[in-house]
Amino acid sequence: MTDTTMPNWLRQRAALTPDRVAYETENETVDFLTLYQQVSAVADRLGSLGIRSGDRVALLGENSLEFIRFFHALMAIGAVAVPLNTRLTAEEEAWQVADSGAGWLITDPACHEKALSVCEKKVCRLLTMQQVRKQPAGRSGLPAEADLNQPCTIIYTSGTTGHPKGVILTLGNHWWNATGSILNLGFRADDKWLCCVPLFHVSGISIVMKNVIYGMPVVLSRKFNPQAANRQIRENGVTMMSVVTNMLRRMLDALGEDGYPERFRCMLLGGGPAPLPLLNCCREKGVPVYQTYGLTETASQMATLAPEFMFDKLGSAGKPLFPGQIRIVSEGQDQGPNVPGEIAVKGLNVTSGYWRRPEATRKAIRDGWLYTGDIGYLDPDGFLYVLDRRKDLIISGGENVYPAEIESVLTGHPCVQEAGVIGIKDEQWGMVPYAFVKTKAGCRFSEAEMLQYCSSHLAKYKVPVHIRKIKELPRNASRKLLRRKLFDFIPDSQVTD
Amino acid sequence: MTDTTMPNWLRQRAALTPDRVAYETENETVDFLTLYQQVSAVADRLGSLGIRSGDRVALLGENSLEFIRFFHALMAIGAVAVPLNTRLTAEEEAWQVADSGAGWLITDPACHEKALSVCEKKVCRLLTMQQVRKQPAGRSGLPAEADLNQPCTIIYTSGTTGHPKGVILTLGNHWWNATGSILNLGFRADDKWLCCVPLFHVSGISIVMKNVIYGMPVVLSRKFNPQAANRQIRENGVTMMSVVTNMLRRMLDALGEDGYPERFRCMLLGGGPAPLPLLNCCREKGVPVYQTYGLTETASQMATLAPEFMFDKLGSAGKPLFPGQIRIVSEGQDQGPNVPGEIAVKGLNVTSGYWRRPEATRKAIRDGWLYTGDIGYLDPDGFLYVLDRRKDLIISGGENVYPAEIESVLTGHPCVQEAGVIGIKDEQWGMVPYAFVKTKAGCRFSEAEMLQYCSSHLAKYKVPVHIRKIKELPRNASRKLLRRKLFDFIPDSQVTD
Repeated sequence: MTDTTMPNWLRQRAALTPDRVAYETENETVDFLTLYQQVSAVADRLGSLGIRSGDRVALLGENSLEFIRFFHALMAIGAVAVPLNTRLTAEEEAWQVADSGAGWLITDPACHEKALSVCEKKVCRLLTMQQVRKQPAGRSGLPAEADLNQPCTIIYTSGTTGHPKGVILTLGNHWWNATGSILNLGFRADDKWLCCVPLFHVSGISIVMKNVIYGMPVVLSRKFNPQAANRQIRENGVTMMSVVTNMLRRMLDALGEDGYPERFRCMLLGGGPAPLPLLNCCREKGVPVYQTYGLTETASQMATLAPEFMFDKLGSAGKPLFPGQIRIVSEGQDQGPNVPGEIAVKGLNVTSGYWRRPEATRKAIRDGWLYTGDIGYLDPDGFLYVLDRRKDLIISGGENVYPAEIESVLTGHPCVQEAGVIGIKDEQWGMVPYAFVKTKAGCRFSEAEMLQYCSSHLAKYKVPVHIRKIKELPRNASRKLLRRKLFDFIPDSQVTD
Repeated sequence: MTDTTMPNWLRQRAALTPDRVAYETENETVDFLTLYQQVSAVADRLGSLGIRSGDRVALLGENSLEFIRFFHALMAIGAVAVPLNTRLTAEEEAWQVADSGAGWLITDPACHEKALSVCEKKVCRLLTMQQVRKQPAGRSGLPAEADLNQPCTIIYTSGTTGHPKGVILTLGNHWWNATGSILNLGFRADDKWLCCVPLFHVSGISIVMKNVIYGMPVVLSRKFNPQAANRQIRENGVTMMSVVTNMLRRMLDALGEDGYPERFRCMLLGGGPAPLPLLNCCREKGVPVYQTYGLTETASQMATLAPEFMFDKLGSAGKPLFPGQIRIVSEGQDQGPNVPGEIAVKGLNVTSGYWRRPEATRKAIRDGWLYTGDIGYLDPDGFLYVLDRRKDLIISGGENVYPAEIESVLTGHPCVQEAGVIGIKDEQWGMVPYAFVKTKAGCRFSEAEMLQYCSSHLAKYKVPVHIRKIKELPRNASRKLLRRKLFDFIPDSQVTD
């Protein structure tokens, strides 16, 4: 390992299994050789535009094969892709473009208008994918090799306060994530992964990496649709899929009395702790759920619940992937079994830092360990339970209150579809929990009834001061609950801050 | 990847899947937690004997779980294992101990007597495994981490001329081999590997590595026995197995009219090119053969024939594993499709050199490529065909003659069990091929008949000058044909050199 070079992944994959299906979309099916040739054509043109190794290039687009071709083309020439979240405002995107120092923004037709406003505010060159394709070709063929230490992506993480930070992930970080995952989930000749998560998130990008490293067909969806996803699993041989809680719930609802075929072997559930009722429902339906814990900083999965413990450790995010390590730390001390603390992680999949943020990097990464800011504990068998993101922690009268726990109780109520809990200031206790619920169709209940229900399931200090009904909980592009946006739903009369 | 540390593999495996079966032997079944505890106990005692990180320690023993425990214990404390081939003479083994600078030789009861003579000739401390176990324990537990750049094994390769060379393989080399293999062969929850190859060879060691990295049960056989191997596959759920040609042939013979269950999915066939008739027989019987090409220097498999090409490319060793690259070079130039030349390989699984042999290392490794000395070609689709080891090349009248080709023809004859071909000097042509065959029971034929048979299948210059019958072909411990030993079977009257 004095060397860290590898063959270019797509080139190697095309040489090894040229005829294997790489992607299926609504409109087309491409094998790896075709994909390689298409990507080479894009890379040639990016090269003739003057894009070089190390350059940051922002990518703004919806899920599409074209997006993936551009992503691979940037990777091949050694440029660093900065995928932009399409749900952000133009102003927010412009900020990320500026922060990353991207000299180019490449966009698809769907995002073109917005891209215009992004580049209006910022000195970056706007290129549509079509414009790039019209460039004259440069030299042909992708470079034969790449260095694992080469930065591959900068993905911005949604910060709670202040601006987001750009997480640098190298080819090596992505490689170690993909191989760590295969050692846990296995890999079969008939595997086919359904990608309905956004390609601008690390969850989507990790599927793009698995595709080329494993040589595994991926069904790429433009958008998530529960009926369509169920159809892919039931009728198109999909064996694995990445979801977050909200997606899974909608798929199960749409499934009705039906089930999934036995060959469907992995529902990889990320994006935060899942409520127990949902997991119980999966258990009843025989859906093979693998709860995972991951961050942009860990190139997606860091821990995943192994097959043999799927039911025995319901609600856990499992154990670290083989190359990784997890500790629970509080005030500099490792915590014993069942004692919550901050989750710290280490592994060759973990970022070595934030783009141009030496201070934030130093704060987050100490002695080779990344301090995630998330709260969890390890049970006596070493299984990780993620309680919550630190920023959401509610400390009430000196007691720690974890929103997820309250939400889990609320969604256990037969009338509650979804729930979100935040902490609001309180003169007496410092903070108190405040809950929002989305009611199931055809259900009725009063706040008093619901509070009574909570009191019968939760310690007094955990019972919300209010439980308000709202139409939709605020969620981000990957359907993660945005608790901070719930503050907007508090009536003025109840705001004490 | 600024960092190259990983969790200690066995410790991590025991933490992740403590209850999963690690090994099955005739006498016992151990799970990973038990194996870890047993290995910790050995490592403690090796530590209290003064064995430290970087020390070379020779291991001389037959296939056993105890051998594996010692192997893991050495790896855990950072010592470098030097596994000795039990078929060598004491003198040959003593030479390797001296060359490696091993301060200790650890042996099992079966090899104790021989170990005494080895250490008699050499300043190394002899320890039996039992003696080590009687040492007082030191500190408990294995180190949490190891560096991928840490040398893990020194394995001597059988040289044709002069002394063997010690191939240094790091943890990283073994890691990249194991992950490269999983990307090609896949990994299923029900996989179980049968190990009948010697643990002192890289083929055996690679199974020990796969075991702990994949978390995959291994059935460990003390010795290869075709009936017992078939029983493991037919009755004990074995799904994968490493063999060389000779083992496979004996298994098929012993199988008779029976077949293997469908769950048996991989017969990994290494150790040199396989004769076409054997492969055809496998084809007829539906045995899923994966021909491979590998060296000690590549930490075992370098290329393997992927599932989808099993039948279309019969006789090929396939394509490189995902992290590796293969070139065909002749006189410094890359050769085109179908043109034979020297096989050069590159990849993170490939050794960075020979122990204390800077000159041999410089000669073999140039610009990051290892020149194997083996001859082969790539077909237009990029599939590797290994023709022969360079040392066995017969150049006759300016034409290249590859022994394997002639052997393949000979074994295609209904009366020939095995065949071996060498080149002998000839005044007229420079060299000519000379053949040895082992006859099938109950078969009779004259040399003239057999020569006639060859003439009808081979160009004139490839027909052997003589075809002699012998009882057994000389083979090494891993059943590879030792062509150079065939020279001893030539009658004096026919020796022209």
